[in-house]
Amino acid sequence: MYVIGIGKTKFGVTTQNLIQLAEEAINKAMVDSSFPSENIQAIYVSNFLGGILQNQLHLNSVISGLFPHRHLPIIRVETACASGGAAVHQALIAMNKFENILVLGVEKMTGYDSGVISKAIASAGDVERDQLPGLSFPASYAFIAQKYMEKYGATSDDLDLISLKAHYNATLNPSAHFQHKKIDLNTIKNSVMVSSPLRLFDCSPVSDGAAAIIISKKRHSKRDVEIIASSLKTDFISLTQREDFTCFPAAKLAAAEAYQQAKVSPSDINLAEVHDCFTIAEMVAMEDLGFCAPGESKEWIKMGRTALQGSLPINTDGGLKANGHPIGATGISQIYEIVTQLRGEAGSRQVKAAEIGLTHNVGGVGGTAAIHILKKINE
Amino acid sequence: MYVIGIGKTKFGVTTQNLIQLAEEAINKAMVDSSFPSENIQAIYVSNFLGGILQNQLHLNSVISGLFPHRHLPIIRVETACASGGAAVHQALIAMNKFENILVLGVEKMTGYDSGVISKAIASAGDVERDQLPGLSFPASYAFIAQKYMEKYGATSDDLDLISLKAHYNATLNPSAHFQHKKIDLNTIKNSVMVSSPLRLFDCSPVSDGAAAIIISKKRHSKRDVEIIASSLKTDFISLTQREDFTCFPAAKLAAAEAYQQAKVSPSDINLAEVHDCFTIAEMVAMEDLGFCAPGESKEWIKMGRTALQGSLPINTDGGLKANGHPIGATGISQIYEIVTQLRGEAGSRQVKAAEIGLTHNVGGVGGTAAIHILKKINE
Repeated sequence: MYVIGIGKTKFGVTTQNLIQLAEEAINKAMVDSSFPSENIQAIYVSNFLGGILQNQLHLNSVISGLFPHRHLPIIRVETACASGGAAVHQALIAMNKFENILVLGVEKMTGYDSGVISKAIASAGDVERDQLPGLSFPASYAFIAQKYMEKYGATSDDLDLISLKAHYNATLNPSAHFQHKKIDLNTIKNSVMVSSPLRLFDCSPVSDGAAAIIISKKRHSKRDVEIIASSLKTDFISLTQREDFTCFPAAKLAAAEAYQQAKVSPSDINLAEVHDCFTIAEMVAMEDLGFCAPGESKEWIKMGRTALQGSLPINTDGGLKANGHPIGATGISQIYEIVTQLRGEAGSRQVKAAEIGLTHNVGGVGGTAAIHILKKINE
Repeated sequence: MYVIGIGKTKFGVTTQNLIQLAEEAINKAMVDSSFPSENIQAIYVSNFLGGILQNQLHLNSVISGLFPHRHLPIIRVETACASGGAAVHQALIAMNKFENILVLGVEKMTGYDSGVISKAIASAGDVERDQLPGLSFPASYAFIAQKYMEKYGATSDDLDLISLKAHYNATLNPSAHFQHKKIDLNTIKNSVMVSSPLRLFDCSPVSDGAAAIIISKKRHSKRDVEIIASSLKTDFISLTQREDFTCFPAAKLAAAEAYQQAKVSPSDINLAEVHDCFTIAEMVAMEDLGFCAPGESKEWIKMGRTALQGSLPINTDGGLKANGHPIGATGISQIYEIVTQLRGEAGSRQVKAAEIGLTHNVGGVGGTAAIHILKKINE
């Protein structure tokens, strides 16, 4: 399967509504692919909070209106923050039936009171086990960070370096939420404490945005990128049900399956987009993905191995932290970045000799994990 | 593909929460199939309003907790009131990858103020075109009824007969919302006007409930039923964008594709479950499905052709009207009824010589339509 077109809106705060964002990303993917929209045979839509925030469900039918009189099979997929990865995973499964599928991710999150947004995001956790006792996502990830630090001797200084890298990369990404925000270590270290040890700059922002990709069975141009693996696994929704707080079994298992499908090992991966909803999540991801051994990610970070010029650049677009996290769009946006890099079209943030890239998209605290591996086509 | 197990909770008003309902339906389907749950390789979850009403999204991960340590690929699908049909459609597409898939539909709708429920259901319509101007679903379907009556000379008397049939059938269905509610024509005719010409007894109720089916590539027992067609089409979400108000193009196109897949014609169908969210919708469905010519459904109803003893029984379980309409469960429940009938296990509502059955599941005012055709296996 090939990604033959990609489109993404600027992530951040916008006056565009859900549908305008969706339409912009779709149009950009269409233009990018030079592909006639008549060839699209099905659409998968990823959206997380349209029901709670905009009172807009049935989004597949709304999107049908952008393809008037086509009556396409369109389905909305939702698996919390992994909705985008899940939609791509579904689309790939459906390639046994369709030649060309559009996958859209879209989210409108800004313009609401923080209480409204916090409650909406909390819906990715269990009502009884997480929401009612007040185990919010910042609290859950702070707990993971505490346990991780305890077990492996990591410190907040390690987390700070992840945030610093994310914000630096974002300054090189024209569609990042925080492209124009230069952040230094001091700012990070002195930012407000959200849930100890996580400060404001350990947390991904509330963003609007959309991303779209077109997947095809056939190659269409030299810019096509091949998808060589797709895996999705689940787990208990609440941390309170887990045995180990320093890894996500769903991500580990999805990664193992994806490596097997792609016939590659972690050391073959040249760059990755990982789900850094909080900085600690990037450290856990590096280990779940087998890039380094458990507890070793802090050394990699200190050595700059995951920086743009490192041996395995991670979150070259700025990640969820600085590219932004319009939830339903995130998983698709990760693939947008990997495709951009593998095409050699990433401009000042281009990774050299990028051949194989991986995306790691997580729902909640690892209740869902979707992994994709993409490959540059060499001729 | 074969349905090898089915489970359904009682539809109606219950103290069970979303997860308890889901668990009951899943357990019943497992017991019905005598199938070890270890053989389930993937799950599709249909739910419409969990986000808005219970603040519970990420339901796929919640369901993962019912299969601890399995880390199954589980995905939630949402296409408004057609979510159940869409989930089955997706599961069937995914049968190229999995041997056995569980499909669950669940909804918890009772216990909320009517304003809360009305607003939640309105999310199946467009925010700008439907919700803000006040074009609710009762109003939209009332408009369809007005246009239909104008065009074809149907009357409220015809609608009343549909409601009467639904409630009669439900008295024979132990898991129907209104099993114990005997309704006569007088009650229907004198019920409160909701949106002219639709009275209370033209409208499906607010129900809780869940339904689950297990689909397999292989046959497992003599009670298995074959799925011989699955199609899903979409359309503009709002009536205000349509050209014809007396039919649903998405349903007509999905039906045409399903008949082609199954290599049958409408006259081969022995019984059908159609999406009678309002009585008028059943008349439109009969025509969209090609059972009778446009404008002819009123004659069929008067002649009793769609009654239990008629030539083409429709909504033998009581339909959305009287079996109930826990939205995310409805599309799965329709398949539950067809399988029950084709197995010959429908007791006092059993249709004689039922060989081929059809389900018709619609989202909003025809913005999504999912059609399935099932066949008894004769040996």
